[in-house]
Amino acid sequence: MERISATYYIETPYEVEAAAQVLAGEQSSGTFVAVPGETAELKQRFAARVESIEKLETVSHPAIPGAVSASGQYHRAIITVSWSIENFGYNLPTMISTLQGNLYEITQFTGLKLMDLEVPASFAEHFDGPAFGIQGCRELTGVEEGRPLIGTIIKPSIGMSPEETATLVKTLVEAGIDFIKDDELMGSAANSPFGKRVEAIMKVINAHADKSDKKVMYAFNISDEMDSMQRNYDTVVQHGGTCAMMSINSVGLAGVKKICDRRELAIHAHRNGWGMLNRHPLLGIDFRAYQKLWRLAGVDQLHVNGIKNKFWESDDSVVRSIEACLTPMLGGYEVMPVVSSGQWGGQAPETYRRTNTTDLLYMAGGGIMAHPAGPAGGVKALQQAWQAAVDGVSVEEAAKIYKEFGLSVEKFGQ
Amino acid sequence: MERISATYYIETPYEVEAAAQVLAGEQSSGTFVAVPGETAELKQRFAARVESIEKLETVSHPAIPGAVSASGQYHRAIITVSWSIENFGYNLPTMISTLQGNLYEITQFTGLKLMDLEVPASFAEHFDGPAFGIQGCRELTGVEEGRPLIGTIIKPSIGMSPEETATLVKTLVEAGIDFIKDDELMGSAANSPFGKRVEAIMKVINAHADKSDKKVMYAFNISDEMDSMQRNYDTVVQHGGTCAMMSINSVGLAGVKKICDRRELAIHAHRNGWGMLNRHPLLGIDFRAYQKLWRLAGVDQLHVNGIKNKFWESDDSVVRSIEACLTPMLGGYEVMPVVSSGQWGGQAPETYRRTNTTDLLYMAGGGIMAHPAGPAGGVKALQQAWQAAVDGVSVEEAAKIYKEFGLSVEKFGQ
Repeated sequence: MERISATYYIETPYEVEAAAQVLAGEQSSGTFVAVPGETAELKQRFAARVESIEKLETVSHPAIPGAVSASGQYHRAIITVSWSIENFGYNLPTMISTLQGNLYEITQFTGLKLMDLEVPASFAEHFDGPAFGIQGCRELTGVEEGRPLIGTIIKPSIGMSPEETATLVKTLVEAGIDFIKDDELMGSAANSPFGKRVEAIMKVINAHADKSDKKVMYAFNISDEMDSMQRNYDTVVQHGGTCAMMSINSVGLAGVKKICDRRELAIHAHRNGWGMLNRHPLLGIDFRAYQKLWRLAGVDQLHVNGIKNKFWESDDSVVRSIEACLTPMLGGYEVMPVVSSGQWGGQAPETYRRTNTTDLLYMAGGGIMAHPAGPAGGVKALQQAWQAAVDGVSVEEAAKIYKEFGLSVEKFGQ
Repeated sequence: MERISATYYIETPYEVEAAAQVLAGEQSSGTFVAVPGETAELKQRFAARVESIEKLETVSHPAIPGAVSASGQYHRAIITVSWSIENFGYNLPTMISTLQGNLYEITQFTGLKLMDLEVPASFAEHFDGPAFGIQGCRELTGVEEGRPLIGTIIKPSIGMSPEETATLVKTLVEAGIDFIKDDELMGSAANSPFGKRVEAIMKVINAHADKSDKKVMYAFNISDEMDSMQRNYDTVVQHGGTCAMMSINSVGLAGVKKICDRRELAIHAHRNGWGMLNRHPLLGIDFRAYQKLWRLAGVDQLHVNGIKNKFWESDDSVVRSIEACLTPMLGGYEVMPVVSSGQWGGQAPETYRRTNTTDLLYMAGGGIMAHPAGPAGGVKALQQAWQAAVDGVSVEEAAKIYKEFGLSVEKFGQ
């Protein structure tokens, strides 16, 4: 029978083997009391199994509160546990409750993070996955292989009217941008109701598409209660939009999947709230496991932060996240990594050097809007930065070759 | 204009005032670049506001990774920030993205936990809240005020067939139990498909209700993708069930609210995965804030762990959680706290002494099933334990007064 496996980074004051068995027990039979009619075969069929244990260092301070070690030592390890597909079938919420449920409550752990998970081949028959993926997003925006999609975020996050936003969109569209998105704080604000914003913005985008044959992708933030999200989605479709954005942690898995399953719009997955799930090194979930869940749910684009970002995350972590998204899952389930936060083009060579890909949605805010030659110069500078990156040209050299990128380096290159 | 406020426990290597302003800026305008057409009034209208700062201790080690302090000092504080209702209206997912979004990524914090939130009175016009609440759950189970609902969990969590489960349910129902639930690991297993389980169990419960006039509440775990959850819900309704359970963190807010909005079944909210969100003292969300979100979504019962539980959580935290659930919100939004984990009745006097309430769903597993006089003795012992608790009788005295409870003390009282 096919099995689902999960890998955890753990810390425990007990023997690692014993702690691993507690996890497996808690997350399958859930009791050590024999029950009438429970045969050994039945127990065997549904029991979680500890597949491997790799012992790591021992430390003298627990990472998070839990049982106190008598010896003052806390042992770290990587463990892999597996479950039969028979336990929960093809049901993502119950899979999550099994792989990420009450185990975080277990006092025998003073650290527990879900690092990765593997689902069996039969999942491909039950989960359609991303409707567009990388190739589809390229087709929708008319951006051929060889460079990333260049995108930006409407700022200020909140406060502008639909008309003001549309005016800004017009500037960006004419500047040659591929992608624009609402901020995650902007759903339906008092002075910018969702429907009015879609109408005003799509008028600009459609008019530009009629003239230029290039339809800019705008990710409208449809995040809301279920029925409102469906209405918001309808509104985007009716006005000829190509993308909807959801704050995936806030909406939640069942809601996001229900929307992805409509398969008419590319889904831009914003992971705000992610720091809560990941920032502690020994608590929560690693991005490698996280991105698999959302690819199964069907998102087409997923945030990964960026090199030299303004947030707390390290470059190494960003690189691992991009690699995770670009690693095929069940033979496909393509998701486009969304690079953002403090990006202006100067990070393009390093991003390419470390990931060797242009299959990215590369987002810059100030790097475009505040460019000395205006937004058109900003977009051009980003395209130049990526050309330089692909050609193996350094930032310093590229600044000499390309006028607009040179201006970016002067202004943002500190 | 009405405002929504959020209180955070923070730690920062910077001045607390400066860090608070970064949070407010990031979570409203999101930029410090002036944009054409952005007036001062508009900025004022949508800007988040730091309402109060209460400074706490300074420590020499950061709680979670972030900016490094030049002075080696990290300052802790409680801060309150507010937003106008105009920013996102009545949209829980976007409210969460505002109160709990990218702020966890901010490098200026080396600790950040959402402790509480306050929503304005107008929320009551937009969110129906729990359909049954405490009073409704008492009516559905026929348990009058003065004692908690006594409940149990089917164990082993997974492995039994519908028929085996129904046999166990028959024993429990005849023992006088008020409530039974699926384990959160049990959705639709290979040998226990959801529909077949509901049918087998409700046959037992309905037959007992016909004889005795007491309908035991069974919380069937409907957690699944959206459409399957709706079908599962229909199945429970069709068979005369009164309750559905969801793993709320795994299903997510939009999905849970959509189900709650049907208002035909009491909703049992299982918080598995909660440790991930709360176990670190300076990361995530406190239960006080958490339970408000789910009451707005409309759950009727919510897990709070129990006194002397088998998990890592302290008794103080459990008591605070019960109090949080029982504090009226917007004049109502009653939710019944679900006390569980290692409970057998011996904790009843302490639970009552510290919370002064019987408005609980009190769950025991082994305390009922493994009682020396059988499940009927176990249920009786729990009722006796609560009678003793309300009468102010100690465990030792109660063991002498009540035969079944006395047997519990002998067996479980270590």
